[in-house]
Amino acid sequence: MIWDQHEIRLAPRARGFHLITDEITRQLPALAELDVGLLHLQLLHTSASLTLNENADPDVRHDLDAFLRDLVPGDLPYFRHTIEGPDDMPAHVAASLLGTQLTLAIRDGRLALGTWQGLYLGEHRDHGGSRRLVATLNGRQG
Amino acid sequence: MIWDQHEIRLAPRARGFHLITDEITRQLPALAELDVGLLHLQLLHTSASLTLNENADPDVRHDLDAFLRDLVPGDLPYFRHTIEGPDDMPAHVAASLLGTQLTLAIRDGRLALGTWQGLYLGEHRDHGGSRRLVATLNGRQG
Amino acid sequence: MIWDQHEIRLAPRARGFHLITDEITRQLPALAELDVGLLHLQLLHTSASLTLNENADPDVRHDLDAFLRDLVPGDLPYFRHTIEGPDDMPAHVAASLLGTQLTLAIRDGRLALGTWQGLYLGEHRDHGGSRRLVATLNGRQG
Repeated sequence: MIWDQHEIRLAPRARGFHLITDEITRQLPALAELDVGLLHLQLLHTSASLTLNENADPDVRHDLDAFLRDLVPGDLPYFRHTIEGPDDMPAHVAASLLGTQLTLAIRDGRLALGTWQGLYLGEHRDHGGSRRLVATLNGRQG
Repeated sequence: MIWDQHEIRLAPRARGFHLITDEITRQLPALAELDVGLLHLQLLHTSASLTLNENADPDVRHDLDAFLRDLVPGDLPYFRHTIEGPDDMPAHVAASLLGTQLTLAIRDGRLALGTWQGLYLGEHRDHGGSRRLVATLNGRQG
Repeated sequence: MIWDQHEIRLAPRARGFHLITDEITRQLPALAELDVGLLHLQLLHTSASLTLNENADPDVRHDLDAFLRDLVPGDLPYFRHTIEGPDDMPAHVAASLLGTQLTLAIRDGRLALGTWQGLYLGEHRDHGGSRRLVATLNGRQG
């Protein structure tokens, strides 16, 4: 049985969705030792998100971000939390709609992702800076 | 300690939400051996979703699907990922809003669901076909 | 290795978002024993939600609730599940958009939350009453 936990610091990104599968997995060498297990990822922030979606056409990432900008504009008349700028409260909403934590299956020392699945960081602030997350691995050695 | 992992192929469904609790659990005989544990489920697709919601009135499933069709129409002017048809990009959005993976508590050899809770497959494509998922069981034997 | 599972009954809350981090953790003394681990929380209901978001300014909780009330009004013409009142179907939608289960990292006997992260109960009914959840702890003793 392996339990392994690391805090990972992601490179800063522009607002939008970004594929981070490789950036995460290359910082988790213990992944390769697990025959069967789970990887739990939790952002330590409330204005960014983690989600699985298509890893191929970058237009999917564009469209998902465009949809969220349209869905949650920064100037909704009932928003009170406006002191951190018009991008902040929409970022909090997106973080809860998409989620800031998820769990991924591990099989034969690798993430058990579908052919078209990739892990996205949703950066919902204009200048979010570097984001940190806690990665917890648990599983059975091969 | 039990670790058990299976790939499950779901029967094809029409666009909309479908109760799959029984279809999943009957393919996981090891569930019955666990006194306490967790079941992690992860779809291997990016245009369908997994969510918990009401297991009784089928109108809830209708209304949830109707809401999503209204929320994310296929002809949004800023959508660029249109080559796979007008049902595709809305399906990617729904997959991230609802999620493609979740974890369920196990108690006394069964899923610890509330009286009214059921597991839904959200099929967001018009012709999504058979969907595959990875089911990972982990827990303590009774 | 510790496996520990409890059913927790939350105090009744008004419709809206409520910080419940302390109410949960003080009912889980085994948390303090875990060096590394995970806490899985699953509501046993389909009209409330669990999400991580900002623990400081209460306006964030107000705005998130105001956004959802605006996004999913109770009188959408295509809603069929109306017999339980105009707050019920919007509550089911919110439960699936935000989620009714999540997993939190444990580090050094405490939840590994970011400085500004808190656990929210989303109460989406006007009179939801007391809500129950299953808390499952799993991890390695320090």
